[in-house]
Amino acid sequence: MHDLLMIDGLQYSNWSQEIFQQMQAGGLSAVHATIAYHENARETLSRLGEWNRRFETWPELIRPVRTASDIRLAHEEGRVGIFFGFQNCSPIEDDIALVEVFRQLGVFVMQLTYNNQSLLASGCYEREDNGISRFGRQVIAEMNRVGMLIDMSHSAERSTLEAIELSSRPVIISHANPASFHAAKRNKSDAVLRGIAESGGLLGFSTYPFHLKGASDCSLESFCDMVARTADLMGVQHIGIGTDLCQAQPLSVLEWMRNGRWSKDKDYGEGSRDNANWPAPLQWFRDSRDFRNIAQGLRARGFAEHDVGNIMGLNWLRLLETATTAQA
Amino acid sequence: MHDLLMIDGLQYSNWSQEIFQQMQAGGLSAVHATIAYHENARETLSRLGEWNRRFETWPELIRPVRTASDIRLAHEEGRVGIFFGFQNCSPIEDDIALVEVFRQLGVFVMQLTYNNQSLLASGCYEREDNGISRFGRQVIAEMNRVGMLIDMSHSAERSTLEAIELSSRPVIISHANPASFHAAKRNKSDAVLRGIAESGGLLGFSTYPFHLKGASDCSLESFCDMVARTADLMGVQHIGIGTDLCQAQPLSVLEWMRNGRWSKDKDYGEGSRDNANWPAPLQWFRDSRDFRNIAQGLRARGFAEHDVGNIMGLNWLRLLETATTAQA
Repeated sequence: MHDLLMIDGLQYSNWSQEIFQQMQAGGLSAVHATIAYHENARETLSRLGEWNRRFETWPELIRPVRTASDIRLAHEEGRVGIFFGFQNCSPIEDDIALVEVFRQLGVFVMQLTYNNQSLLASGCYEREDNGISRFGRQVIAEMNRVGMLIDMSHSAERSTLEAIELSSRPVIISHANPASFHAAKRNKSDAVLRGIAESGGLLGFSTYPFHLKGASDCSLESFCDMVARTADLMGVQHIGIGTDLCQAQPLSVLEWMRNGRWSKDKDYGEGSRDNANWPAPLQWFRDSRDFRNIAQGLRARGFAEHDVGNIMGLNWLRLLETATTAQA
Repeated sequence: MHDLLMIDGLQYSNWSQEIFQQMQAGGLSAVHATIAYHENARETLSRLGEWNRRFETWPELIRPVRTASDIRLAHEEGRVGIFFGFQNCSPIEDDIALVEVFRQLGVFVMQLTYNNQSLLASGCYEREDNGISRFGRQVIAEMNRVGMLIDMSHSAERSTLEAIELSSRPVIISHANPASFHAAKRNKSDAVLRGIAESGGLLGFSTYPFHLKGASDCSLESFCDMVARTADLMGVQHIGIGTDLCQAQPLSVLEWMRNGRWSKDKDYGEGSRDNANWPAPLQWFRDSRDFRNIAQGLRARGFAEHDVGNIMGLNWLRLLETATTAQA
């Protein structure tokens, strides 16, 4: 029996039976799996096809999440529900109709940008941030209509605030941390975090070392202290977990994330020439099996059991249940 | 109130409000709409996106058919259910995973070839017919698994017989007529028709003049006589209607069907250089409003009301309800 219904708000691992077994052992009822970083529409279809194959191959471990309530079924079954998201808008190319088509294929979440300027908005690594583009305004309204969550994890500040303003439904940061905890281009200002909360959205705390104070040496206590301070800022109903776990991925995948097809020079993203590889994992969070460590850390930090449950999964679940329905 | 639940087993019109109104006025509860002739995967996504837009624009006239039982709902609502099909395997390109992906997007039917040799089989205009290819065998098994109907309307004889042999589920000819009625490359031998019936499949009778004895002058009596003879051959539970209506389409669309991107020379398909355009329509079947004329003709030919209902829609409905479910 799983005590908590736990959800990881972002992973992009080199998916395998072993990794799904770890998710199950860790007690996860759902994981938001990244489908695309720079993939175009056609490539994205093959990525979705690969997931169909995984569902066919390991039905005892994983199940597709077609509607958010499937996560409750997964919890009862002791399987891990998988829901899909894009970390970039590349899959829709220049065609607004593809928002609904990909929603029909089970895509619950799309980031408007991945670090760079996109057709919709600006990314957190750009020099300038023009906010939301003409196409971006159309896509936000369409995502609202069909029930696809707007994720601004890799977007720039102005773009993020404008997206929150334009969207009639919650906007999320699936995986990042407060900049007040650790100053990083990917972490978020208090203004953004307050806006996310006001929209009814959610911040998923990241365990990716580049997003943490002390990087790979960040302690569980320090992490849970950040959670507590953010709960004070945003409200405990607006926070969850989005680990950004990227297990067993070769350096070539990190290079694809960072460079896609857009750069002839090598971009090192959050790393550097001398620190180009994946960071070392946290001692207290090696993989999905350690999810209960976070829950335990939150209890130790003084969170009531009720709020531990909300942070570890129920906030995500309630958000998905309301924000991924088609608009009446 | 609609007396009969009527289904048209194939149309490819220049879709508009007027055409949907005609379907509704004609009492149709469902229409199989062609999505692709030569479109690749990416282009097909945009075609499906255009249908989403139509469903959004005219909800009082049409509704999507996501499961076959939606056709019964459409009948009760007095709306026209639309289900999707491909006339070619071009949308799946060389990727077997796209069979399931497109099934998830509501595609119920796929032809293995469109006149020409494809990656799967041979078309009815090819000089030679190698039967089902290596990829074709894989795709047939996958279509069986996910519940996508195999349609051999534009395929060659040996390919069709082999597909019937290989498939564990019904195989259909959505739109054609018996070659014994009118000798045409697109019409089917008795051997094929018997095979289709034995597979549990169905022949949809075409009203496209090139498939009819006397072409545009073919009488309703002659058409209904053909239906009666085919009922004797195949069994009345294995026949339906597949009009092949292509309303309001410019010549450029006919040229796209015939030439796609494969021919530098102009191919005239079932026409000829001197007869290159769309044929004149039948007097007794101008468009979907005349569907009841066919039912009336069948009654006049002596069909019992029960069988008129089966031929006009219930045979299609029962087939779709059994053959488009995922295999256990």
